[in-house]
Amino acid sequence: MRVGVIGATGAVGRELVEVLGRRRFPVTKLRLFASGRSAGTVLPTPFGDTVIEEFSQEAARDLDLALLAVSGDFAKKHAPGLVAAGVTVVDNSSAFRLEENVPLVVPEVNAAAIGDARLIANPNCTTAILVVALAPLHAAFGIKRVIVSTYQAASGAGAEGMVELERETRRVLVDGAKAQNEVFAHPLAFNVIPHIDSFQPNAYTREEMKVAWESRKIMGLPDLLISCTAVRIPTMRVHGESVTIETERPVTAEAARAVLRQAAGVKVLDDPAALLYPMPLTATGQDDVEAGRIRANPVFGDRGLDFFLCGDQLLKGAALNAVQIAERVPALRVPA
Amino acid sequence: MRVGVIGATGAVGRELVEVLGRRRFPVTKLRLFASGRSAGTVLPTPFGDTVIEEFSQEAARDLDLALLAVSGDFAKKHAPGLVAAGVTVVDNSSAFRLEENVPLVVPEVNAAAIGDARLIANPNCTTAILVVALAPLHAAFGIKRVIVSTYQAASGAGAEGMVELERETRRVLVDGAKAQNEVFAHPLAFNVIPHIDSFQPNAYTREEMKVAWESRKIMGLPDLLISCTAVRIPTMRVHGESVTIETERPVTAEAARAVLRQAAGVKVLDDPAALLYPMPLTATGQDDVEAGRIRANPVFGDRGLDFFLCGDQLLKGAALNAVQIAERVPALRVPA
Repeated sequence: MRVGVIGATGAVGRELVEVLGRRRFPVTKLRLFASGRSAGTVLPTPFGDTVIEEFSQEAARDLDLALLAVSGDFAKKHAPGLVAAGVTVVDNSSAFRLEENVPLVVPEVNAAAIGDARLIANPNCTTAILVVALAPLHAAFGIKRVIVSTYQAASGAGAEGMVELERETRRVLVDGAKAQNEVFAHPLAFNVIPHIDSFQPNAYTREEMKVAWESRKIMGLPDLLISCTAVRIPTMRVHGESVTIETERPVTAEAARAVLRQAAGVKVLDDPAALLYPMPLTATGQDDVEAGRIRANPVFGDRGLDFFLCGDQLLKGAALNAVQIAERVPALRVPA
Repeated sequence: MRVGVIGATGAVGRELVEVLGRRRFPVTKLRLFASGRSAGTVLPTPFGDTVIEEFSQEAARDLDLALLAVSGDFAKKHAPGLVAAGVTVVDNSSAFRLEENVPLVVPEVNAAAIGDARLIANPNCTTAILVVALAPLHAAFGIKRVIVSTYQAASGAGAEGMVELERETRRVLVDGAKAQNEVFAHPLAFNVIPHIDSFQPNAYTREEMKVAWESRKIMGLPDLLISCTAVRIPTMRVHGESVTIETERPVTAEAARAVLRQAAGVKVLDDPAALLYPMPLTATGQDDVEAGRIRANPVFGDRGLDFFLCGDQLLKGAALNAVQIAERVPALRVPA
């Protein structure tokens, strides 16, 4: 299969190439696209050294699959043309996620929504990590309310976010100077910034509303009561999520643990006596979302549950989920 | 007034000395106590250079006020003897906080509880920061449920916590080596640890339960539905708290903002357009708890509210609150 990664030099683009290799995706020819600035550079990939090309619709139109790790504006401009040319497009941006005729997919939850679509949207990273745990809990206990507070890593803002956090942490520790900022709204080194993406009229940020909007669409629960507080913290990779749910039916920690142990894409890490619980340190580079700190929350009587998630937002939150979607697109299926 | 700081070399002890000076507490003689190891060292203080003494009840019995920044075991062993000798004791440890005859006080909320007590407990840092915002909101709207997720700094584990975070961050960034840990259960540099204090039979940590137990006692609401997820993150100072409440009566963001603007000990910092919201960067060294990101949370219909707090846990969460308590003890009041 002729596969193109569009935005190949970004944090997600690089992961896409790795994930395609690691999952032995049936690539016959890999093509990497980026801006003119990077064109000509040779990147080593699991499919051999590959020259980065400058993107144009003309150049990309003979792909079978295009994995887009680009801005929403770029995706809006180019995805429809690629689809018209017969390319299957999996888009990481938010451009099409809420469009009615575009499936928004986390394969463990709603792979069937792909249908015969040739343009499929990959959800926001925080959402993807959340719904792999929420969906099986909903199936088992019914979910009435969801309250999430996030602990989001610098790389959620792309490779530049990681570079800035590293550089500014060094500036503080080694140079004894004040941290500065360009990528983030404030210096992130040893700080916490309760502000990701732009503010909406309701005083939630867009990142927070994405978690609500997209979780509802993926889970097929348009009226799900869900709210999020999205917070950037000084970690490099992996988003943490502190989640409280109120269920429709009684729930216990033990029952919830049993459900999550069976859930695809989830790894239960919940043995406090052995100091085992989800952490960026252990979740980095892992496909599965770690779930732990599972406990009954008495604030909702016998229908409350707390848990903590850690998921690699460059993998399940982005590249891995995109490749998993591509693996499920009927038109792309390689005959066994 | 003869004032002693017991545990003067720790993170809280050092802040206590600073706060006494900054608030012009009527100290006639300041005495600093620590372990034998530090005895003899001279510390510069706002009250002049002071020699650290090794603590003994005998040595401390002629104090008017003893501010304890020591372990719970140490406090249990020595506080009763000091009180019996006529010393007023404000204890920072958890030793006496839940004892029925010991007031647990955040002066902005329940100064009246001090009464004629000579032993007064200072709450857990996360709790103190939380209740200065919760109490006025409860007075205005009635609080039915509280759900908190915390973003707690390394210094919550004392000065050693800060030293470890700094050393290990350097090890990762400068030496390119793996972070190590002694103070924390896992390496904290660029990591998130959802584990503070010991685990309880209900799978909450003691830190999380302290927030519930102590908030109920301070606010005089023994049945308050409140749960907490306490998380250590790689910041040096200031605890962040993402708070969701369900109120008894309808609430709006504007009404809540107006209430918090009038609340003692709270500084509303809530102007997203100007990038103003609570952050460790701005809350460090500040007496007031920053409150922002105030918004209606539709998960609870017209009775839901979200907000984010940042409070310097060495100040309002410890030293400042202890000195504020001492300022309100009737027996210690200096005639005007």
